Amino acid sequence: MGGSTFGERFAVTTFGESHGGALGVIVDGCPARIELSEADVQVDLDRRRPGQSRIVTQRQEADRVTIHSGVFEGLTLGTPIGMTVANTDARPGAYSEMATTYRPSHADYTTDAKYGIRNWQGGGRASARETVGRVAAGAVARKILALAGVEVLGWVSSVSDITADVDPAEVTRDDVEADPTRCPDTAAAARITEAIDAARHDGNSLGGVVACVARGVPPGLGEPVFDKLDAELAGAVMSLPAAKGMEIGSGFAGTLMTGRTHNDEFAPGPDGRPVTVTNRSGGIQGGISNGADIVLRVAFKPTATIASEQKTVTSSGEATVLAARGRHDPCVLPRAVPMVEAMVCLVLADHLLRQQTTQLADTPSPPQPSG
Amino acid sequence: MGGSTFGERFAVTTFGESHGGALGVIVDGCPARIELSEADVQVDLDRRRPGQSRIVTQRQEADRVTIHSGVFEGLTLGTPIGMTVANTDARPGAYSEMATTYRPSHADYTTDAKYGIRNWQGGGRASARETVGRVAAGAVARKILALAGVEVLGWVSSVSDITADVDPAEVTRDDVEADPTRCPDTAAAARITEAIDAARHDGNSLGGVVACVARGVPPGLGEPVFDKLDAELAGAVMSLPAAKGMEIGSGFAGTLMTGRTHNDEFAPGPDGRPVTVTNRSGGIQGGISNGADIVLRVAFKPTATIASEQKTVTSSGEATVLAARGRHDPCVLPRAVPMVEAMVCLVLADHLLRQQTTQLADTPSPPQPSG
Amino acid sequence: MGGSTFGERFAVTTFGESHGGALGVIVDGCPARIELSEADVQVDLDRRRPGQSRIVTQRQEADRVTIHSGVFEGLTLGTPIGMTVANTDARPGAYSEMATTYRPSHADYTTDAKYGIRNWQGGGRASARETVGRVAAGAVARKILALAGVEVLGWVSSVSDITADVDPAEVTRDDVEADPTRCPDTAAAARITEAIDAARHDGNSLGGVVACVARGVPPGLGEPVFDKLDAELAGAVMSLPAAKGMEIGSGFAGTLMTGRTHNDEFAPGPDGRPVTVTNRSGGIQGGISNGADIVLRVAFKPTATIASEQKTVTSSGEATVLAARGRHDPCVLPRAVPMVEAMVCLVLADHLLRQQTTQLADTPSPPQPSG
Amino acid sequence: MGGSTFGERFAVTTFGESHGGALGVIVDGCPARIELSEADVQVDLDRRRPGQSRIVTQRQEADRVTIHSGVFEGLTLGTPIGMTVANTDARPGAYSEMATTYRPSHADYTTDAKYGIRNWQGGGRASARETVGRVAAGAVARKILALAGVEVLGWVSSVSDITADVDPAEVTRDDVEADPTRCPDTAAAARITEAIDAARHDGNSLGGVVACVARGVPPGLGEPVFDKLDAELAGAVMSLPAAKGMEIGSGFAGTLMTGRTHNDEFAPGPDGRPVTVTNRSGGIQGGISNGADIVLRVAFKPTATIASEQKTVTSSGEATVLAARGRHDPCVLPRAVPMVEAMVCLVLADHLLRQQTTQLADTPSPPQPSG
Repeated sequence: MGGSTFGERFAVTTFGESHGGALGVIVDGCPARIELSEADVQVDLDRRRPGQSRIVTQRQEADRVTIHSGVFEGLTLGTPIGMTVANTDARPGAYSEMATTYRPSHADYTTDAKYGIRNWQGGGRASARETVGRVAAGAVARKILALAGVEVLGWVSSVSDITADVDPAEVTRDDVEADPTRCPDTAAAARITEAIDAARHDGNSLGGVVACVARGVPPGLGEPVFDKLDAELAGAVMSLPAAKGMEIGSGFAGTLMTGRTHNDEFAPGPDGRPVTVTNRSGGIQGGISNGADIVLRVAFKPTATIASEQKTVTSSGEATVLAARGRHDPCVLPRAVPMVEAMVCLVLADHLLRQQTTQLADTPSPPQPSG
Repeated sequence: MGGSTFGERFAVTTFGESHGGALGVIVDGCPARIELSEADVQVDLDRRRPGQSRIVTQRQEADRVTIHSGVFEGLTLGTPIGMTVANTDARPGAYSEMATTYRPSHADYTTDAKYGIRNWQGGGRASARETVGRVAAGAVARKILALAGVEVLGWVSSVSDITADVDPAEVTRDDVEADPTRCPDTAAAARITEAIDAARHDGNSLGGVVACVARGVPPGLGEPVFDKLDAELAGAVMSLPAAKGMEIGSGFAGTLMTGRTHNDEFAPGPDGRPVTVTNRSGGIQGGISNGADIVLRVAFKPTATIASEQKTVTSSGEATVLAARGRHDPCVLPRAVPMVEAMVCLVLADHLLRQQTTQLADTPSPPQPSG
Repeated sequence: MGGSTFGERFAVTTFGESHGGALGVIVDGCPARIELSEADVQVDLDRRRPGQSRIVTQRQEADRVTIHSGVFEGLTLGTPIGMTVANTDARPGAYSEMATTYRPSHADYTTDAKYGIRNWQGGGRASARETVGRVAAGAVARKILALAGVEVLGWVSSVSDITADVDPAEVTRDDVEADPTRCPDTAAAARITEAIDAARHDGNSLGGVVACVARGVPPGLGEPVFDKLDAELAGAVMSLPAAKGMEIGSGFAGTLMTGRTHNDEFAPGPDGRPVTVTNRSGGIQGGISNGADIVLRVAFKPTATIASEQKTVTSSGEATVLAARGRHDPCVLPRAVPMVEAMVCLVLADHLLRQQTTQLADTPSPPQPSG
Repeated sequence: MGGSTFGERFAVTTFGESHGGALGVIVDGCPARIELSEADVQVDLDRRRPGQSRIVTQRQEADRVTIHSGVFEGLTLGTPIGMTVANTDARPGAYSEMATTYRPSHADYTTDAKYGIRNWQGGGRASARETVGRVAAGAVARKILALAGVEVLGWVSSVSDITADVDPAEVTRDDVEADPTRCPDTAAAARITEAIDAARHDGNSLGGVVACVARGVPPGLGEPVFDKLDAELAGAVMSLPAAKGMEIGSGFAGTLMTGRTHNDEFAPGPDGRPVTVTNRSGGIQGGISNGADIVLRVAFKPTATIASEQKTVTSSGEATVLAARGRHDPCVLPRAVPMVEAMVCLVLADHLLRQQTTQLADTPSPPQPSG
């Protein structure tokens, strides 16, 4: 495959480029009889879409989703859910110089190196626009997780050197959505807004960190070797455009601790199951969830597309300079929040289903004929 | 599947627990006609094996590999390569208390939560002993990569707060193997040795960071969406026991830069192909290799198994204390180096093969009859 | 997954039901720089579509395909090709009794047993309408195969007891398309037309056999164990609606021969490669193509949906009788031809690409052939 | 991959050639807490092994299996089950002419065409010896199926033109194992024995048909499109050495019937679930099991390796003649029975597990701590 499918039991396949006619996704393996509507999907697409606020790209895309299959009378059928979103505000003429000039730190050169061909009218599959399909699928996954009592919530933890003061155990969706930055620390949010404004006016861009918590994850999800839950989450979030690093629980800071201070001691939990007194494990031990909050952080580099002049080369190998035109995000962080959440939802929904085969059901599931 | 298979074209499936009869691996999809011997595999297993130096676990395992299939007269056949390594120094009696008591920050509880059963005679699949199969398979991948001009080299970058001063572009295998710590900075290596000794005497443990570079990777490897080369590397290294974070290129530090300073400007290269003047991308742009060195870092937590008393609970839910017995590494870093290298080799070999299908061969490959 | 993806390197994922809003397919892993247009795809969809002649279902669907992504300026990009076809002539009201009554030998009951829910407005995923996505993807595969010199051609070999006299080595596409039955034996075609007419007037239906040949397949395609080329072809064609059997080369008749008469002796071929004097192997030996024509046959049962009264039960378990309404094919054979071809094309294109990784490209020093 | 893995949730990966050191298999995804011993596996290996009777190959292999992992105190752990069987009676010297001469209708030439290299000391991966791993894994699958009330039973239905008179609904394992031919019709078995003896003395070989029934399969197994249960079974059994065709239910004979006679009418079953009055569907409708017996038939060609002289070519393209030496089966049918059963068991166990994710478990499965 060309790597456009993600997940084993809850499997998502996407198509679409920044300037093709449409983007789309097929969700295969969604359990039957889950309530699902286009509105359920639209809410996350709206959080991802361009033009949603002053601090993101001003490309105007309504990103209205259509569900073509897999749902009947408001319930999933168990069959593949096909969804598409049209591209309506593509402006291919705006990028004609990109046909022959490679934007620094973008995927123009590597795409040519890989395929020997490239749709230069935008970023193609490397565009953040590709994440439309992921976010739509993630919204379906979120519905499943909700039925299992799992909540997935992300937020902007830092932009450049401005760091939010947030307690992962307490932050709410309302806190996050209260500000266009998606930083739930009001003071930090104000400074981030200023910094993004300044970067845009300066033809520059900023990076930062998105944090994400998954609450209510039952113990037992994840496989002990290659498909450890943390490995799957790492592969998932590192596949997002501009991601440069990820950590879970104590992460890199944990390497400075000793085992005696780092280990999470167990205590008897209220329901008789063990609980950890601390959570340096980030909710995962030996690759398997332990019931505590899963907490992870993803580093996003400053947007590669900037309006300042930079040295580069043409596809025929000549040195040149380029000041990128086109609409772009001076900082991807606010829109990266729903993307990170979507990838976390996809991993957790997949492993929730995978876990259902780890033990044999006592009896074959009886048929439940519809009325 | 139970997550014991890794890779798409160069696909590796492992079995084995810390205290079962043997560990093994099947490498499926290895190209035909590659020179391969047991000695090629043994060299990496020797770098991974316990008991190799004073600062690692003293469990004595020779870890001699046997190749059962897939090789004929010194060349790979294109058919699956089956390899096994026997467990010879397992001491199940040494861990009898583990049958009922959960070690903090280990996988005992989560394994029970997942499967409802657990081989308590050691860490089972969660043991670092499971990586025998990965390292054996990685050695096969390394042979393929060498034919393509790719070298993969890891080293200990830090232990606790002791950080090595190493230039990823210059470090050599000899530098790394010169010291049992696998830290190529001699002064740091000495301090690390002291720190590990002190931790062991104190019944404590240490964490740290392994860095890894892949040189000579051709441009074009990796897929643009879910199977980005950095995403695949992230999933790979984060599936290693005790990994808590990973970053590539500028990583988390890159979030503090602006686009103008972070972007890697292009210049015409000596062979006409573009080269980057800097390498904040870490050799990967848009998920696809650009020909520059791939540089990544992996954070490993302090070993969970320590000889100090810690609070925990039993499998029946009662509070207790545990001071782990058994042989263990006071710091996994020196042995983690070949593990990280193995995972990087597996990803790169897989994508090297995957890239061979990205364009149609001009003519169907002519048969090459033997003899 | 829910089994909606087919293929490993050339991977196809479909969605859509007989009465949903649209059907679609994503082709992932198509090599870059292949010429492709909507017209290329439409030609096969037109051969599959309902209403194309008097002897097939009279549901009127234009089945116009839209390519949304993966193609730029007439060439494939190497990225996923998203295609959709709208449902325009669905008549859900026509089937209201199917909400509660199970059609004999159809998938109504088994769908309920599997999912506990069912879109009763038609056959859902079990409808032959689902094959729109397969045929569209097969047309892309056919383009790749043509570049490799491979031609795939199917025809109606028999309907009921009317058997065509056709030489698989000589039959042409023009022969097949000359008659709406897709039976290239003119005399048999006339009798088949009469038989289908009679069955329809009688509220009955007929079955038959589709034969298919693949010419120009290079030797070496297929894997030696589970993914034998014949096994892959078997799984492919047996996944078509109404398929009840398949055979390759000598098939069931070959069981009546002895080894001495069945074996295909080798002779030196014109280009020095061995050729078989006979072709009882059907072009595949040990699961791998040998360069001879691949010849297979697929048995299709009589259409399950018939206008005659039959005994059945309701979803609440009560005995009843049902005479199916709705538009249907009295014999699926004519439309099954492009479906069989599509599945054969998908398998061959996938294995053509898979074979490109069986040996390492550009090995600096090729190993010596074994003795 | 090289096609050595089979199954999605219950996934089996094999290695080994006819003359390598050992054969083996890894079963990944086996549910935890299933009783399993080496004896459970050995019973099926003994039915498959060479030398078990006068009418099969006289190669002497005890085929003793060793389980290396995945089982603890008699129960599966949920982790991969690694198993090996040693080759002890390989006689590579017996086949030296095969290094340069291609056996007709065997895989010698196609293996060279595929890989450019071949282990000529026997049939390599194309040898029926490769099925050791499948049969071992199938025995594990059989244990799971037994817990779900499913029984899988195969028998020799015909050899050459000698056809057994057997009722698939009534035949028992004891009937089948009563005679070395595995033909439960005593009169036919006697004639088959004579025919096989005659063929061997004549340096010739015979083909035939294996039938197989799966009883007690719950309704709902199989996916509606590519992974139809019949498609999966077809791919499974057609991947066995020497298989040339398969049919299910009415099969090819069903193409001669009309819909009115072919359709299986439903009646209310004893437990309220619909049952079919006839079983022309062979237990599968729309790719999904309906609760009736699954009945299939597999055609096996006459053994390609015969002791008579045949025309062929050498690997350098010269015409020659070959009378194969080496030990071989004059008729594979008796040993093919456990092979067919194994493949059917693998498919059914996989789909039994897959079906467990088709609906969301009401609540996350509670942990079941051991000890």
